[in-house]
This record gives sequence, structure tokens and C-alpha cells, in this order.
Amino acid sequence: MSDKRTARPEPRLPKGMRDVDASEVRGMESMLSTIRSVYELYGFEPLDTPAFEYSDALGKFLPDSDRPNEGVFSFQDEDEDWLSLRYDLTAPLARFVAANYDGLPKPFRRYQTGPVWRNEKPGPGRFRQFTQFDADTIGAASMAADAELCMLAADTLEKLGIPRGSYVVRVNNRKILDGLLEAAEVTTGGERLIVLRAIDKLDRVGIEGVEQLLGKGRKDESGDFTKGAELKKKQITPITDFISATAGESADSLNRIEALLGNSEAASKGIAELRQIEAILGAAGFDQTRVKIDPGVVRGLEYYTGPVFEAELTFEVKADDGAPTRFGSVGGGGRYDGLVERFKGVRIPATGFSIGVSRLFAALKALGKLDAQSQCGPVVVMVMDRDRLGDYQRIVQDLRGAGVRAELYLGDSGLKAQMKYADKRGAPCVVIQGEDERQRGEAQIKDLIEGRKLSEEITDNAKWREGRPAQISVKMDDLIASVQSIVARHES
Amino acid sequence: MSDKRTARPEPRLPKGMRDVDASEVRGMESMLSTIRSVYELYGFEPLDTPAFEYSDALGKFLPDSDRPNEGVFSFQDEDEDWLSLRYDLTAPLARFVAANYDGLPKPFRRYQTGPVWRNEKPGPGRFRQFTQFDADTIGAASMAADAELCMLAADTLEKLGIPRGSYVVRVNNRKILDGLLEAAEVTTGGERLIVLRAIDKLDRVGIEGVEQLLGKGRKDESGDFTKGAELKKKQITPITDFISATAGESADSLNRIEALLGNSEAASKGIAELRQIEAILGAAGFDQTRVKIDPGVVRGLEYYTGPVFEAELTFEVKADDGAPTRFGSVGGGGRYDGLVERFKGVRIPATGFSIGVSRLFAALKALGKLDAQSQCGPVVVMVMDRDRLGDYQRIVQDLRGAGVRAELYLGDSGLKAQMKYADKRGAPCVVIQGEDERQRGEAQIKDLIEGRKLSEEITDNAKWREGRPAQISVKMDDLIASVQSIVARHES
Repeated sequence: MSDKRTARPEPRLPKGMRDVDASEVRGMESMLSTIRSVYELYGFEPLDTPAFEYSDALGKFLPDSDRPNEGVFSFQDEDEDWLSLRYDLTAPLARFVAANYDGLPKPFRRYQTGPVWRNEKPGPGRFRQFTQFDADTIGAASMAADAELCMLAADTLEKLGIPRGSYVVRVNNRKILDGLLEAAEVTTGGERLIVLRAIDKLDRVGIEGVEQLLGKGRKDESGDFTKGAELKKKQITPITDFISATAGESADSLNRIEALLGNSEAASKGIAELRQIEAILGAAGFDQTRVKIDPGVVRGLEYYTGPVFEAELTFEVKADDGAPTRFGSVGGGGRYDGLVERFKGVRIPATGFSIGVSRLFAALKALGKLDAQSQCGPVVVMVMDRDRLGDYQRIVQDLRGAGVRAELYLGDSGLKAQMKYADKRGAPCVVIQGEDERQRGEAQIKDLIEGRKLSEEITDNAKWREGRPAQISVKMDDLIASVQSIVARHES
Repeated sequence: MSDKRTARPEPRLPKGMRDVDASEVRGMESMLSTIRSVYELYGFEPLDTPAFEYSDALGKFLPDSDRPNEGVFSFQDEDEDWLSLRYDLTAPLARFVAANYDGLPKPFRRYQTGPVWRNEKPGPGRFRQFTQFDADTIGAASMAADAELCMLAADTLEKLGIPRGSYVVRVNNRKILDGLLEAAEVTTGGERLIVLRAIDKLDRVGIEGVEQLLGKGRKDESGDFTKGAELKKKQITPITDFISATAGESADSLNRIEALLGNSEAASKGIAELRQIEAILGAAGFDQTRVKIDPGVVRGLEYYTGPVFEAELTFEVKADDGAPTRFGSVGGGGRYDGLVERFKGVRIPATGFSIGVSRLFAALKALGKLDAQSQCGPVVVMVMDRDRLGDYQRIVQDLRGAGVRAELYLGDSGLKAQMKYADKRGAPCVVIQGEDERQRGEAQIKDLIEGRKLSEEITDNAKWREGRPAQISVKMDDLIASVQSIVARHES
């Protein structure tokens, strides 16, 4: 670094990083606040942990086994202990619970939101810093804890304005998968992963495609060949039977799967757990359109140890290629009883749900559900006479006092530049008081939004200047009320 | 790290780091939200920048020249470029403004809040991660921008519930100090710093003490000797004259200082700027009890280039030794026109104000101004019969639907442990429904807070059990309303 000290540095962002602009900060804040309100209602307690932890305490528990070797950002402290920026909010929770176990209420419900960092290859929409919003229940083996997280997810999505029918929380159980792999005599980790990935591609390649991927391999439309898992026919059949069984009504699909895998102790247990969740959901008034038992869910199955959840938005958006596509997943989670084990040597039951905050934000934006989107900029009070800054500041302060977002123009430029500034700020109107107006105890209010509309209609320049469209004179006593009514009109 | 992999890791926090508990997260959230609302009202726009930046873009502009060599946390990316965790929110702002200058409205008002990190020696109340809340105005040379930040600080403190008279925003100007040091013929950076520090000690050592610190040195009550600046008598006199002049009414003190330093161009300019600020504040309705022109302020003078602000809480708290002491500073700032210069090579006027969020939070806590402090825990619905989890979950869900924070007991334990759990959660009441109650279409509500009070009065155990104090039976139709009234009673 020191050799660069004399050169002027580039004001560039680190690779994979981004600045967040005002409208996104506001929208995000409002979204997080709504999520918080639902989590609070459910009795979850907020927690905040530091951005970095000792690397050995954090472990390397990235939940996605597709990318086991992807990295974290690490550095050493003065004792040469390694520190890492947290890559999720679960690993710090495990450290917190292990350190504070005796003092915690048990079960312990906590929620946490904040940025996490991954030292991965950045790409479009893929950043090295992003926000998560997690809820976890520690110390509850009961399926009621898992059911609650599904209800929490569904209630949160609705509270954010996503209508019933436009989302679904899908629930599966890792134990069913274990039973299936048992039946298919798939034993190695590598094979397990290939089977999972093949099932996950069902939507794209169809059941025949999955069959090919489990066998010799599959050639896609472009002619590219994907090598298969080379399973034997008698291994493939239970898997394709399973996939067929997962289609259709979920209560029935559990019966169908029981018929297929009932001999497996693991699968039976998984099915029983899903039935418990189903019963609790039903009693609590959550029907299948909101939370659906769906043994076809694959995501997360490798990582979790029991029930697995996925919150999906089912409305269609345009994909990059213009084709309509389901919005897809905005969060997921599941039961992970090994959470605290690496610290304490004992298994403590734990289940959690994590929202992908950026994805969810994009969804709300697409749906027009962000209040902040309709917000105007501040009212700008213009400076006509530099010696009267105090008077103008007083007008600004009176507007603020009445709850109107307002500012004094603080630059050095003339009237034209001030109008341009007000436009750029998205001001609903400007307040103008020259010497004439002051002597009459008046001010001018120019409605910029209305003015813009009118200027598209009036083409005669002279007429325009003469008519002062969308501009009114008001007595100073009426100024605040007049401004308020203009702002209200444009923010509705 | 790899040699430790088999050992069980310690669940410890990194040095200088802390977890933030539920009550603090909630209180902090509510405080930040109030601050945000005032900054929005003033027309400031939120911005969020990443946690780390390229080290060369961040620079090393720690505002405290007392600790110029204190460090930041740094690491290298895959291109071997150095990255550093931000140590404040000003350096990232400079990078942002330099990178986006042409597209920004000018002047540009922005606010930002978030954690910053310092690789400094931690101590009591001194952490390596802490939160700042900054407002800055870029591109405005006008003193109206500085006046506005002082008003913003004062309005924010009041909005947070700090009464008028319990805070003051003090304003000075670096240019006056420059004039003073000119008059005292103090030229080296080292001497400047010693003079600043000596003036800063006025409150503790009195004017004689300052005189000694500027001269040969000073022996304190314990006999410890502090070496002095070894200034000559004719150098010391202007400084002590200056200090005497800063006491008393501020309008007068500006006149007194003008009489002393009027020959200095720098000082005259600084005095003129303070008078402009004073005039704007006066016109905008901010009197001296809220924002006070005070040439005695020293903090930040070395770093800033024009006006300097300090927001101070004037009410008394007990110091560590039990003696009453002013709460002191909760934020500060000033004009720093060199902000963007290192990137762009041109000076762009800039002024800002930064809140020390933890200090301010401590103040609000001491004043009992945090709403979150009075909040109860969730209502706990107990599990009497494990087969009826769904019914209990339904009760919980109905309570939540009515806006009551509620949870189902999710553990495996019996009634006694469940009561203990509810106590630990701070529940205002529990809902109990055994088979008898269910058959009668009723539930029991036990008011835990009332119950605790009564148990202190009733000493006879048998009588206690018999009377079921603070416990009522209600029809299921009345359950929600009854719970709501108990919660309302305890949260008022």
C-alpha cells in the first residue's frame, strides 16, 4: 500500500460489493420492520452478534454442499488468532447458545437480521455482502416448533402484502430421503448428491430426464451431454416411483410414499413427523394453500436432519429471456439438531427459517408493495435573496415542525439551477419568496409534479411563462396548509 | 487452524466484541427509527455502503489525532488488493461522492447508520465494533448547512425525549483557533496539539492549571507531574486571555475574542462565520439554550477546517466513583472541506454531524426514555395434554391474530417447569386449559405479575394453593379480551 500513497486512489467499490440507494434503504427498512413485527408477535427475541467471530468458533458449516470449498473473509488479530466475517447467522447463533446455554429460557426462540459475507465469485445479482433474516428455536424437539416456523413464514409473507395463493411454504423431511436412498441402495456421499440434484431438476427435465440423469446420462436440446450417476435399473426404479408419488394432493402423497417406503424406519419416522406438522397446521387454521406438505422438496435436504421448509412465491415474473417464470424461493430452513454439538458434544434440538432478504425485497418491488416507492422528495424552499437565509430557514423549520419533509436550498446557484435541483430531489413543490412577495406577506408555491404534466400540454412558450401554471400565491398564514395539501395529493 | 480441527472449539467472543441482548436490540431499533424520522424530515437521504472497502480508497483519516496510529482490520482479496473494514462512515461517503459526483444533486444531504470497526485496544465500554449515525451535507459552502446540522442535532435529541435544557449543541470554529495559535506564535504540530489538550483540561485543572501545562508543567493533587509545553510567557498570555474571554454569554464572548484576535485574518473569518450561524439559528427560532456559540469548544478542532459542533447532555449522572458528573458528549462534527479532495484533487465543501449511538443509548436508558423497557414478554399458552398441541396452537394463533404477543410452550417438561419458563420469558400471564376446562368450554388465565405481588403478601402455603390468587376462569369466547386487558394493564 505504502508505495501507492502519493498517487490519487480510485474511488472504486470492492469486487462483489454495492452501495444501496435511498429508495432501497427506505424500502428495506420498512420491509424489515414488518418482518420484525410478526416475529415479535410470535414471541421470538431479537439478538445481535458481532460481524466477525473466531474462525474456529464459526466453523465452516456453509449450508450448501454444492459449494463446500467456497470461502469466507478471514484475518488475524494481535494474538495471531484467526477471525472470519460471519457467512451466515446460524454459526454465530450456535456459538451464542453454547456460551450462554444455562442462562437461556428453554426452548429459546430468537430472531436476527444483518449482513453476512461470502468470499465467493461475484456475478449478476450475486454479491459478497447480503442480508439475512433468521428465526430459530433451540431446545424444542417437538414438531410444533417446526410447524410454528412454517406459520411464521406464511404470516410474514401475508403481512408484507403478498396475497394468499401467491405464496406457499412447502415442507418435507430429510428422513424420507434417507429412506429413499436406503431403498435405492445409494450409500456414498457423492451418489447421494447426484440423486438429489437429479430430483431437483424434475421441473426442467421431466421424469424421463431424471431417469437418464440417474442412469447413463442425458443429452439436452442443445446437444450437450450430462454424465449420469450410473445407477442400476433396480436402484433407479424406487427413485422414479418416489417422484411419481410426490405429485398431487399432499395427504395422499404421504400415503403413497408410505406404501413405497414403509419398510424403512427412517422414512416412517419422517412421514409420522410430517403428519404431526400437518395436524398442528390444520388445527391452527393453516390450510394447504398456505403451508403444504410436499415430499417433492429437495433443497436443503442434505444439510438438515429432519423437517425442511421452503417459502416460495408462486406468481409469475419475466425471466431474463422474457419468458414467464415463477418468482421462486425467498427463504428456507429446517431442523438441524447438530447445531451446538461441535461446541458442547451433546445434540440439542434446533430448527430454523432464514429469509433471503434481497430476493424477498425484489419480489415486493415487483408487486409494488413497498410504501416507500410512492414517497415524494422534500419540499424545497428557494433562496431568492442571500441576505434573508434566516427567514427562509424559518419557513423550512415551520414546515418541518408541521411534519412536512422540507429543506432549504443550500447551494450558491441562481433560480434556474435551484429549480433543476428541486426536480432532481423529486420535490413535490417549491416555495418562492422574493422581495415583492415578502412585502405583501405572501409566498409562491410551485407544484412541480402538476407543472410537469401541464408543460406537456402547453406548447406556447410565451403563454407558459405568462400563465405561471401550477403556481399559486398564498398568504404566509396559509403556507403550511397549502403545502401540506399539495404533498398529500402527490403521495396518495 | 487445521491442527485444531479435532478439538472442540471454545464458544468465545473475539476480543473487544459483544452480543447485544433483546432489550438492547429493541431499544436501539426504536431509537434509530426516531433519529431516522427527524433526518428524513430535514430532507437527508439514506445511503448504505458495504462493510469493507479497498484500503487505499478508505485512507487512514481517523478523526482523532490523539491516536493516529491505531489500526483497522484488513485482509487481502484474490487479487491481493488490500481491503479494510470501515472505521467510520465518513471515509466511505468520500469514496461514494467521488465515484458518483456528477449524478448527485448538489448540495447532497445524506444520512447513514451502521457498525464500524476499529482494531484498537478494547476496554470497559470500549468495543471494536460500534454503531455510528452520520448526517453530512456535501457541496454547500453556506453556513446555513452548518446551522442546519446543529438544528438537526437539537431537534433529534428532543424527539428522543431529552427535554430542552438537558442538552446543548455547542459550536466553535477552527479558524478562531488558527488565529489564536498565530497570536501565540505556536507553529509546530506537536505544540498545537499540546495547546489544544491544555485548553481541553480547563474544566478539570482550572485556568492556573492550564497556564502551568502551557509553561513548565503541572503537579496534580496526587503529586504526579505532567511535563508542560515550555511556551514563553508572551505566548501563554494570549491563550489564557482567550480562555477567560470564552466564559460567559456567547454573543459577548465573540466580541471579546474579536477584540483579542481581530488582527488575525483567520480568526476574523471564523468569528464572521459563527455570527452567520448565530443569525440563522436565531431567525429559525433556535435560542442559546438549544444551540450555543461557544469558542471554548476544543474537541475536533484539529481535524475540521471550519465550524465545529458538539452535542452535549447536561444532566448529571453518577460517575464510576459515585460523584455526580455531566453526562457529556453524545455526538459531534464539523466542516471538513478536504473530504473528497484526495480522490478528485479539488476541494468540495462538506460538513457533517455524527452521533455516538452507544453513548446516546446509554443516556436514554438512564433517563428511562426507551419505550421497549416497559414491554412484557409474550403470553405463554401451556401444554397440559400433549395430544392437544393443535388446539393449544390454535389458541396461540388466535391471540397473535388479535395482536397479542404469544407463544406455545414448545418443550417437553411438566407444569412446574412450564411455569418457570413463563417467568423467565417475562410473560404477563399464562393460559392453561386441562381436560376439565376444555369440557366446560373454558380456560384459566394466571396473571404472573399480579401473582408475584400477592405471593409476597400471602405466606400460608395451603391458603395460597386453595385461593389460586391472580388466576381466573374465562369462557373461551372471552379469552382474548381477558388476556388483552391483563397485558394492557402491565404494559401501561
